[in-house]
Amino acid sequence: MIERAAILSTGDEITTGKVVDSNSNYLADKLVEAGIDVAAVLTVGDVPERITWAWQQAMEKADVIISTGGIGPTADDLTTELVAKLAGVELFFSEEVANNIRRLFASLNRTMPENNLKQARFPKGAEIIVNHLGTAPGYRLDLDTPHGKKHLIVLPGVPREMKPMMEETVLPWLRQMRGGGEVFLTRAFQTFGISESGLDEAVAGTVADHEGRLAFRASFPQISLKVTVRGKPNEVEARLEELSNRIRSRVGSYVYGEGDVTMEDVVGTLLKQHGKTVAFAESCSGGLVSHRLTNVPGSSAYFHGSVLAYADAAKINLLGVKPETIKLHGSVSEETAREMATGVRERLGTNIGVAVTGIAGPGGGTPEKPVGTAFLALAADGVLVARKYQLWGNRDWIKTLAAQLALDWVRRSLLGIPIAESGFIRR
Amino acid sequence: MIERAAILSTGDEITTGKVVDSNSNYLADKLVEAGIDVAAVLTVGDVPERITWAWQQAMEKADVIISTGGIGPTADDLTTELVAKLAGVELFFSEEVANNIRRLFASLNRTMPENNLKQARFPKGAEIIVNHLGTAPGYRLDLDTPHGKKHLIVLPGVPREMKPMMEETVLPWLRQMRGGGEVFLTRAFQTFGISESGLDEAVAGTVADHEGRLAFRASFPQISLKVTVRGKPNEVEARLEELSNRIRSRVGSYVYGEGDVTMEDVVGTLLKQHGKTVAFAESCSGGLVSHRLTNVPGSSAYFHGSVLAYADAAKINLLGVKPETIKLHGSVSEETAREMATGVRERLGTNIGVAVTGIAGPGGGTPEKPVGTAFLALAADGVLVARKYQLWGNRDWIKTLAAQLALDWVRRSLLGIPIAESGFIRR
Repeated sequence: MIERAAILSTGDEITTGKVVDSNSNYLADKLVEAGIDVAAVLTVGDVPERITWAWQQAMEKADVIISTGGIGPTADDLTTELVAKLAGVELFFSEEVANNIRRLFASLNRTMPENNLKQARFPKGAEIIVNHLGTAPGYRLDLDTPHGKKHLIVLPGVPREMKPMMEETVLPWLRQMRGGGEVFLTRAFQTFGISESGLDEAVAGTVADHEGRLAFRASFPQISLKVTVRGKPNEVEARLEELSNRIRSRVGSYVYGEGDVTMEDVVGTLLKQHGKTVAFAESCSGGLVSHRLTNVPGSSAYFHGSVLAYADAAKINLLGVKPETIKLHGSVSEETAREMATGVRERLGTNIGVAVTGIAGPGGGTPEKPVGTAFLALAADGVLVARKYQLWGNRDWIKTLAAQLALDWVRRSLLGIPIAESGFIRR
Repeated sequence: MIERAAILSTGDEITTGKVVDSNSNYLADKLVEAGIDVAAVLTVGDVPERITWAWQQAMEKADVIISTGGIGPTADDLTTELVAKLAGVELFFSEEVANNIRRLFASLNRTMPENNLKQARFPKGAEIIVNHLGTAPGYRLDLDTPHGKKHLIVLPGVPREMKPMMEETVLPWLRQMRGGGEVFLTRAFQTFGISESGLDEAVAGTVADHEGRLAFRASFPQISLKVTVRGKPNEVEARLEELSNRIRSRVGSYVYGEGDVTMEDVVGTLLKQHGKTVAFAESCSGGLVSHRLTNVPGSSAYFHGSVLAYADAAKINLLGVKPETIKLHGSVSEETAREMATGVRERLGTNIGVAVTGIAGPGGGTPEKPVGTAFLALAADGVLVARKYQLWGNRDWIKTLAAQLALDWVRRSLLGIPIAESGFIRR
């Protein structure tokens, strides 16, 4: 039975500090959720001796080893060769996988470099783990060793490929191997507008250790609060529901969604449900609001378009903002925001029009309007709301906060909850 | 002499996935900067055997070990006791540090819990590293071991305390220890439009093992190729230059930048240098082109704005696309793309106008125009280029590719290299 895991991540980009190893964090979270203890996380660069050392150590400390990275097509991708050597097995060539790779390249009208076929080689006895999003499949190799049965799981390092493989193939297998009759249920609450410590305070004491486990994950600008319960199948669901109710009652309207949803998912779903359409007039958010909403499949049903009015001329010519308004109040002002919102709503013929104008910095700030000053406005049937915000952080943060606010304004207007109460500014 | 480091991070919060271990990333980056090779990063929870195991492994692999976490006042902070045991030395109590801790609590009008004095104990022989921002000082312990001289550096886990200690005390010491021996130099080439394996083939044989190391890192849609040289200070620079020239001659126009630059940085710099302005007409890219370009500080100098024309009405009303054009050829067509590009250029009065229209999917595909079909057009003084692309992957990928192409088209037009050769289709 599997009780203990080790996580390996391979890649010079990690040991040289070029990227943060977020895969290990994701894997540790999933493993603990599945009731498996993570004995160690080992990270090494693309150096054969070091990779071999890491696998040896991991196999001494754990029953299951999950490795990410090192299975690309290039010369510095060494994991598979080294794993086979460690396991003392040959490599075999999978015609089926090779054909998939060929097909993938063909479908892109691209000639496949021969070295891509490297990704069709696996240690003898390996169970292949399908990768729907890339050329590198993963695999699982079960070994009998002096230290007992070991399960070696090799996954690609690209998170968008690795995560679905983990969730569709590896986790179900792990839960089954974990056995013990216990099941795990988890639910995530997505929040916006409350700080991590504020959230921590809000839920303090809601969940006792024997009832479940709370974990926070801040991924700016939202913070997710995840509750995990573990126990007998016949009672975990009721307990999760009970704990969820307690959490909802404490965190209230800061929760914009439950489960693995983004603010744009929620807004898209609401727009569809209410049969409403939306358009944006963006300045300081620079297109991020529209980019996020158009990430939602099917958004063309409710999103007509946007005007990115960076220059004043664009605000005047494309949105019909009055030159006097800009002269009198400035392009970053409540008045301009109102005219941008009504203007884009009219011109694109939508139910809702939202405008964002502000100073993203680093330049452009003044004593009266420092960097981070932003105005939002929302125009809808018989509604015209506007509000000033003082956002913070670098350019990137200010764009991100402005975009999140604009989407939260749409959410609130559709739910009929006070629009301008969105945000954290009174923190 | 110090050449090789290991990074340890201790804490259940990391091995249970509650927090991402950003300290290790920070430390790896600083160490590599200082010319020190990071042999491994080891992460374990607050379990004595595991912490001891990690230190033993680290001392076998490295000359200097930098540990973060595990020196708080609570019972599960075990690092100092375990390090002393490993080193075979007693703990000593520093009255001076104890008084600092007492003073710190006094200055906050807080009574000091007795267990805080735990933080005044250090392994005999340890050199204390002052912590100006918290109660836990760090320390360095130099040991003679069977594996040679080892330097054990223990720092707190709180980033805002750890980082200044690293920068004020540890790094200067490390650089000095590093001495006039070997140094590392590295340069990254950012490429777009060539696959990782294609890149691998292109540079195959350009760099011999004794000359330097090549590493690829795919962060969709670009791939960076990093060359690292190591040697005597007086010759590494010339060698890096020489290798860089070889690489440039092999990879050519696929390289859009060198160092830590993004496509939007490069495009922004070029627009400024050439004193040109740009506007975009986006459909399937959904605002991502504009979002990326406006991530560049100061982009308002050359970016006037964009029109996100998702609905046909938007293409007609805001960009002046002829209704017949859409009726005849469809909104996803070369003709529509051309009119969108010229339209946005006129309306926003810019030197360059770029249009992207396509089918991002998952819906909307047809046999003639499957998901991923995209048309780009660029209008400039006396120039009107358009081309069809067949993009791939999920909605997210298609948006990303379309946006990268649009930016690369601007780059190519400013550099006077063939615009429509951008992209990977001919590989």
